[in-house]
Amino acid sequence: MPDITPFRALGATTMLAPVPAVLVSCRGTQPPYDRDNLITVAWAGTVCSDPPMLSISVRKSRFSHAQLMQSGCFYVNLVSQELCRATDFCGVRSGRDVDKFAACGLTPVRLDALPETPAVAQAPICLACRVHSVQELGSHDLFLARILQVYVQERLFGEKGEIVMERARLCAYSHGEYRALGRMLGFFGYSVASPEALARRMPPRPRNGR
Amino acid sequence: MPDITPFRALGATTMLAPVPAVLVSCRGTQPPYDRDNLITVAWAGTVCSDPPMLSISVRKSRFSHAQLMQSGCFYVNLVSQELCRATDFCGVRSGRDVDKFAACGLTPVRLDALPETPAVAQAPICLACRVHSVQELGSHDLFLARILQVYVQERLFGEKGEIVMERARLCAYSHGEYRALGRMLGFFGYSVASPEALARRMPPRPRNGR
Repeated sequence: MPDITPFRALGATTMLAPVPAVLVSCRGTQPPYDRDNLITVAWAGTVCSDPPMLSISVRKSRFSHAQLMQSGCFYVNLVSQELCRATDFCGVRSGRDVDKFAACGLTPVRLDALPETPAVAQAPICLACRVHSVQELGSHDLFLARILQVYVQERLFGEKGEIVMERARLCAYSHGEYRALGRMLGFFGYSVASPEALARRMPPRPRNGR
Repeated sequence: MPDITPFRALGATTMLAPVPAVLVSCRGTQPPYDRDNLITVAWAGTVCSDPPMLSISVRKSRFSHAQLMQSGCFYVNLVSQELCRATDFCGVRSGRDVDKFAACGLTPVRLDALPETPAVAQAPICLACRVHSVQELGSHDLFLARILQVYVQERLFGEKGEIVMERARLCAYSHGEYRALGRMLGFFGYSVASPEALARRMPPRPRNGR
């Protein structure tokens, strides 16, 4: 166990980490919002297993906020290391001024679950979502959404049909920085797993640190 | 940009990744719930910047669910690599049967923000939270909470009073696996930053991969 050191109080602030930074793709139904757009959201999380649901929080002032309110649909596109720069860009530029798909060299693709809404063809995984409710919390509105369908790039599947998530090369966001996911520390249940399961599923431990 | 490959539809499922896996510490007010307890939550996220708020989702059947309903308070304790095994354990065992603090060798500590509620002394960062609302979604209840105070271990502070998050050695949870956070890919705004800012803040690029 790590040493116990004193705590310093920082005040009330958002410090949950790491969080996902995802590309949310959307399109409104009325001008000027009826065009494909992207917004980066780090205030996102899974909120329910059954039915599968997630949340994203978006400021009312965002161009995408009106798009989400009009259509009630969006995709959450997971972010690979290759998409990290585009993800940052889509978090600091507005769809009012820029065609972000074009500016980032990304391809909007239509998938069956939400035929009117663009997904990101380059994303390793896209989650089709339908808005369930919108709640005003303060700076951000909380969109709770049902996950209707999950699309996974074919290249992520292993020989037995399993998803080899490492191939997605996902990023995390932590205290203002994008970070690659590093080495595997364990699998769900490893703390109580049998020696056989550990031998089968745990990678050999590296000599030092991460 | 990565190659575009076809997508395969998986069905409706929870696939947002990476997500945080955090240790939530809590204590009820009435027997048998009036004892210090820990629960691991991966369905967690920041939901608002101002006021600072986060969400955790917990099944009604959990021992901790009743504790949270009674007290309306909890800590979100961020998880370092050193706490990863304890975090897994606290996700597969119930506080009905086990004193999880003792079983994991963790120390409950009282901090000013929530004097009745234990925080984890070994956690790099602890967020004191007060429940704002509880919503039934299905398998999980969604607890929205105000972040009242953030406690950061002294050892995480750099010379200029900044938080050196790397020292927290945080973990992420992705598709059933705990992963260390790896190399820094960029900082918020790096896609539009000046060459001077990039030179100052970006680490030298490694020769290969992650």
